[in-house]
Amino acid sequence: MNVDIGTLLLESGQKLEAITLAYETWGHLNAKKSNAVLVCHALTGDAHVTGDTPSYQGWWETFVGPGKALDTDRYFVICSNVLGGCKGSTGPGSINPATEEPYGLTFPVITIADMVNAQKKLIATLEIEKLCMVIGGSMGGMQALEWAISYPDQVERCVPIASTSHLSSQALAFDAVGRHAIVNDPAWKEGHYYGANSPEKGLAIARMIGHITYLSDESMDIKFGRRLQKKQEYGYDFTTDFQVESYLKYQGDKFVNRFDANSYLYITKAISYYDLEKKYGSLEAALAHVQAKFLVISISSDWLYPPRQSKEMVKTLMKLNKEVTYCNLESPYGHDAFLIENPQMASLVTQFLEHS
Amino acid sequence: MNVDIGTLLLESGQKLEAITLAYETWGHLNAKKSNAVLVCHALTGDAHVTGDTPSYQGWWETFVGPGKALDTDRYFVICSNVLGGCKGSTGPGSINPATEEPYGLTFPVITIADMVNAQKKLIATLEIEKLCMVIGGSMGGMQALEWAISYPDQVERCVPIASTSHLSSQALAFDAVGRHAIVNDPAWKEGHYYGANSPEKGLAIARMIGHITYLSDESMDIKFGRRLQKKQEYGYDFTTDFQVESYLKYQGDKFVNRFDANSYLYITKAISYYDLEKKYGSLEAALAHVQAKFLVISISSDWLYPPRQSKEMVKTLMKLNKEVTYCNLESPYGHDAFLIENPQMASLVTQFLEHS
Repeated sequence: MNVDIGTLLLESGQKLEAITLAYETWGHLNAKKSNAVLVCHALTGDAHVTGDTPSYQGWWETFVGPGKALDTDRYFVICSNVLGGCKGSTGPGSINPATEEPYGLTFPVITIADMVNAQKKLIATLEIEKLCMVIGGSMGGMQALEWAISYPDQVERCVPIASTSHLSSQALAFDAVGRHAIVNDPAWKEGHYYGANSPEKGLAIARMIGHITYLSDESMDIKFGRRLQKKQEYGYDFTTDFQVESYLKYQGDKFVNRFDANSYLYITKAISYYDLEKKYGSLEAALAHVQAKFLVISISSDWLYPPRQSKEMVKTLMKLNKEVTYCNLESPYGHDAFLIENPQMASLVTQFLEHS
Repeated sequence: MNVDIGTLLLESGQKLEAITLAYETWGHLNAKKSNAVLVCHALTGDAHVTGDTPSYQGWWETFVGPGKALDTDRYFVICSNVLGGCKGSTGPGSINPATEEPYGLTFPVITIADMVNAQKKLIATLEIEKLCMVIGGSMGGMQALEWAISYPDQVERCVPIASTSHLSSQALAFDAVGRHAIVNDPAWKEGHYYGANSPEKGLAIARMIGHITYLSDESMDIKFGRRLQKKQEYGYDFTTDFQVESYLKYQGDKFVNRFDANSYLYITKAISYYDLEKKYGSLEAALAHVQAKFLVISISSDWLYPPRQSKEMVKTLMKLNKEVTYCNLESPYGHDAFLIENPQMASLVTQFLEHS
């Protein structure tokens, strides 16, 4: 579904008009309107959290659905494609009504707060006053945090998973190299490639880099090791020798068919800009007025959004006497572990929803 | 200096003819010819370990020179640019005498063993029968290992620093993405770009990825953090916002002026292929016949060639009753720490040279 949410004044000071958000819902809003859960997606996700169509798998099928951890028989679950995205919400690939051309790089740089302010308008059109929970992993966790901070009286529970109040220098660097690969692809043409070849090679490289950071050293050793791809001996050429090489190329090639390069630029920029300490002066100041109960989950092997960053949030929340539960999930699967079926994570969230 | 070493039968089974190695030496070979130390360089290094010209800094000035850890007043130090390199030794950018054109991708894929076999010929032309020590960091450590294994009676001491008997799956992946960036640069032209524009953009991306892996998360946080580059506030555009971004771009741009993209392909391939376990069946079998005394040094914060890999070597050497000293250097600087002045590393090597 799509909803027109009008104009937003962005954090940059710019105005963006005629914004559409694409969203999906599952389950039913109860009479008291007290069972609404907002799911926020990560960098390359979209509104399609879960669904019945085998041809279009949701990104959190393992976690959301009837009888699942986030039980759509009991909760009214909402997810919208983020502002700046390329799956139905207004983004750099959308038509600028003022010019009737795709925005391209004339699209304003957006932030996590802008994404959340757009979602706030969606929630208002659904006539929901209070969210029973806002939950998300990675960039989705940043949005959950932002909700609890910007709209403290509208968020009852906040669940940032594998997330952080700011990227580390190393994580900034990986995102910067990904963007560099895109803008240095000759097909990028300063962002005005719509209707022509898109910068697929650059975007694939960005995705390949990203993919390495979403896995852990250990999980890559288990999953691929140094196994060769369909050969017994080295090729002594520059074709693909190793399974891990082949996997990354496959992931890169698959990704360019479903994602817009400019959206990748804008969304990684928003992630890089997210910095609660910078915006509020300190994490303590940022979190001072939150009213939500928190469940903070980190992944032991996540080196992109490392557990120490979650622990920092938890310590600050505790210092502020906020209600907070913390779990550092033991998992070898790295940052992406939150997307993989995990009974412990499922049980943590279910318990948190029902008993807090 | 250059030396012609003739023909090599490569590990791939191919023959390479009319090979030149570029090399430098420091100090004097003593009458007994017992003070020769071979230094092996890493991926992007060359024969210029140290020197007097401020315009062309050696890559190991901190470590090699008169009165330094590797004291050129006492030892005769040799370093050659590796086979496949682009700093004077025969590589893909060299002229193929058969065609009078640059080899490009007709250059055969070479291995670490091939590099060492070429160095062996250089050492023979210098009429040195025994090396007092072979030392190197990263890929240089692989060569040191290979020397001790392939020429056991010619290596008295072997010092692999921040090195490994095989890359991890994650490290293979980073190298593969770097190569992917090069070969997907339209300027690469299947490797036949000599005399025209070289694939600078792809090579710069490969270098940027590499650079992140050479530093540690911690050292990046200390060195750059999230500091902005010459601005107080986010630019809300796609210019460079963060210092770390600016640093990586600078490193990428600087690198393309001094390195050949095809050499980058060939040398990373040689590194990826290095796998003592695969070649010999086990690390134990690989190291069974070494005669050298070993000093193995790893860097505590090195996540590209992690300490566990050095420990594996050390355990195997101990099991085989070889003489081995091991130190996991406490340093926050990641893989590249071996290139930075480090009094503990200096003292370890000096002691090892003089008292073992």
